Amino acid sequence: MDSGKGMLIVYSGPSGVGKGTIRKKVFERFGDKLFYSISMTTRAPREGEIDGVDYYFVTREYFEEQIEAGNFLEYAEFVGNYYGTPKDKVEKKLNNGYDVMLEIEVDGATQVKQKVEDAISIFVVPPSMEALENRLQGRKTEEQEIIQKRLEKARREIVLAGLYDYVVINDDLEEATEDVVSIIKSGHLKTPYSIPAYCKELIKQIKK
Amino acid sequence: MDSGKGMLIVYSGPSGVGKGTIRKKVFERFGDKLFYSISMTTRAPREGEIDGVDYYFVTREYFEEQIEAGNFLEYAEFVGNYYGTPKDKVEKKLNNGYDVMLEIEVDGATQVKQKVEDAISIFVVPPSMEALENRLQGRKTEEQEIIQKRLEKARREIVLAGLYDYVVINDDLEEATEDVVSIIKSGHLKTPYSIPAYCKELIKQIKK
Repeated sequence: MDSGKGMLIVYSGPSGVGKGTIRKKVFERFGDKLFYSISMTTRAPREGEIDGVDYYFVTREYFEEQIEAGNFLEYAEFVGNYYGTPKDKVEKKLNNGYDVMLEIEVDGATQVKQKVEDAISIFVVPPSMEALENRLQGRKTEEQEIIQKRLEKARREIVLAGLYDYVVINDDLEEATEDVVSIIKSGHLKTPYSIPAYCKELIKQIKK
Repeated sequence: MDSGKGMLIVYSGPSGVGKGTIRKKVFERFGDKLFYSISMTTRAPREGEIDGVDYYFVTREYFEEQIEAGNFLEYAEFVGNYYGTPKDKVEKKLNNGYDVMLEIEVDGATQVKQKVEDAISIFVVPPSMEALENRLQGRKTEEQEIIQKRLEKARREIVLAGLYDYVVINDDLEEATEDVVSIIKSGHLKTPYSIPAYCKELIKQIKK
């Protein structure tokens, strides 16, 4: 990240932890300075999903061409469908000085951290496994079997929280939002990116 | 820093940049969770300065005994007087879970960063050298020669901003305060310190 460049924010957390709700509140705080990266997928759109808003819906053939061409920041296959982050759109936004947030799975997050050294990564966890189970039960629409599978997946994800730069506990929505906002704000204050141009000039003058 | 331990915050900036004003506002935000480390010095108290509030005023002999005993986190000599940070008081507060802020010079900051690996360091800079000069001129109490000396010292300090983890520009007092608050908040969210106990338990269970 150069001084004028935006920051890449990798954002993950288990299903049911409330990361989408936090993300929306974080976006309210940053307005159009923060850009949400839309993933590309080969799965069929669900009812109400809009191409270019929820996902870019593409064919398997097109997706594999994009993989071949190295056009993904990260991608993965889940239950027979590809999901990935198109590199060009993210890079354009970053180069134009916007921060970009990727809401992706742990696998993808690891890929991104390897490619983009100065990306910051945030993992949202529930206050306890019981709290997560209660939240998943609260949805009521799900079969018990599905809930247990999600909890098992959540456990496998949560043990990898240490791969991330930051962990935010979603106990209170407002606090968790403030936490994510603080992380993003402080990311911009890290040296050497945060050193203002006149300071760099002083350094040059001294080196002469 | 263990999970239950406080965070050590090293805080510096050139004379006249307004770092004392920001610091006071930051302390208002954190209340008694944040502790200000009082320095020890061999210089004589100025009018109105109180022992144990502004500094611990001690004799040269006592200070040198403390150096010998390795009781300083950092110390330095300026114009014939010693200034230092007593280690025991800081460590006690950290062990009790309080964050501790040290407002010290660049030399001392480097010493602390070598000793306390997970300390975070913040350097406050003016928006420009002209702004700093205006602020120093505005005090009006100072001789021109003193102002020029301070500016020269500020230049030598500012070029070392890159030694710090974070740089905050004091253009607007409220914004600069928010910046420092964000840095401290996000410091607590860094892994591995921020990983909650139940997540660590999950990790242990999986390793079995």
